[in-house]
Amino acid sequence: MARSVGRRPGDSGTREAILAAALTSFAERGYDATTVRGIARDADVDAALVHHYFGTKEQVFVAALHLPLEPATMIPAMFEAGPDGVAERVVRTFFRLWETPQTREPLMAMLRVGFTQAGAAGMLTGFVREALLERVAARLGVPDAGLRASLVGSQLVGLAVVRYVLAVEPLASADVETVIAALTPTVSRYLTGDLA
Amino acid sequence: MARSVGRRPGDSGTREAILAAALTSFAERGYDATTVRGIARDADVDAALVHHYFGTKEQVFVAALHLPLEPATMIPAMFEAGPDGVAERVVRTFFRLWETPQTREPLMAMLRVGFTQAGAAGMLTGFVREALLERVAARLGVPDAGLRASLVGSQLVGLAVVRYVLAVEPLASADVETVIAALTPTVSRYLTGDLA
Repeated sequence: MARSVGRRPGDSGTREAILAAALTSFAERGYDATTVRGIARDADVDAALVHHYFGTKEQVFVAALHLPLEPATMIPAMFEAGPDGVAERVVRTFFRLWETPQTREPLMAMLRVGFTQAGAAGMLTGFVREALLERVAARLGVPDAGLRASLVGSQLVGLAVVRYVLAVEPLASADVETVIAALTPTVSRYLTGDLA
Repeated sequence: MARSVGRRPGDSGTREAILAAALTSFAERGYDATTVRGIARDADVDAALVHHYFGTKEQVFVAALHLPLEPATMIPAMFEAGPDGVAERVVRTFFRLWETPQTREPLMAMLRVGFTQAGAAGMLTGFVREALLERVAARLGVPDAGLRASLVGSQLVGLAVVRYVLAVEPLASADVETVIAALTPTVSRYLTGDLA
């Protein structure tokens, strides 16, 4: 197909071409430097078509990696009942995703890939930081939102590694409510407490 | 060489043969199930020779993986000044190892391998749990020492992943004293505080 002609919206492979171009761009340029316009150019389609099929860059990312989450609705839901208890809801959301086999598998794959491919690590961390943790911290209106978000990330990533990836006992078999109770004060302090 | 004759202590390759047999056994059987006797048998030497060259199973592990640490002396040192401040000394020891390039590299390699090879994960976690964290928790004489040790492990592993392996900002460039101050209350609560 001549590049100047471009793909027509009806092409059956258009969605797949967009997702493939997106995955390549996220892996090679990182999450931050990837744009919907750049993905469209690489996939030889109009940017409006990318928006039409998938929405925002974040939603393209979620679709390209088959991620079991939707930050745009997930994060507002954590704040619905007000800022009190946000830490516990963050922790509960994390465990809901990791305790369900269908959502655990893609997260586990994403974490493993992030460890072994430099590009994958860049796209993974860019997404987790921008789409998830910085939004939570920004909504809380605290100073050092970026540092707080990455501290929360460090505890949750570490929990995922120890409990699910490496399956270290007794944490791997510990009752989930016990682990939620142990982690919530940590996440709460990182989000809104005194860090020094 | 006939197996029944065995290697003589003076064999120049004996140390290397022991370390190679040890690495295979730790990777295939895990840390817990590996014994000095088994390593000696696999390397075709007497178990006394393994002890003579390296000492305990833990010391064979440290030598086989070129680890920049010596738990047998490191952990008593953390408790020298009494139980107060142990959490901060655990955190400071962790950062001393990770902030020094010569010691960071083998730790990073160990973490990456632990993620991609099931056997490596087993030997890594067995060692970290038995040789490091359970000893700290046991010395503190608290209930749930195993759970407490693995919670500390989850925060420290997560910090290593986010700051050093994935290099997520702003945590990757944050001043080390800031990060120590942020982590110490978490490690302190996991070690001796109220978990529920």
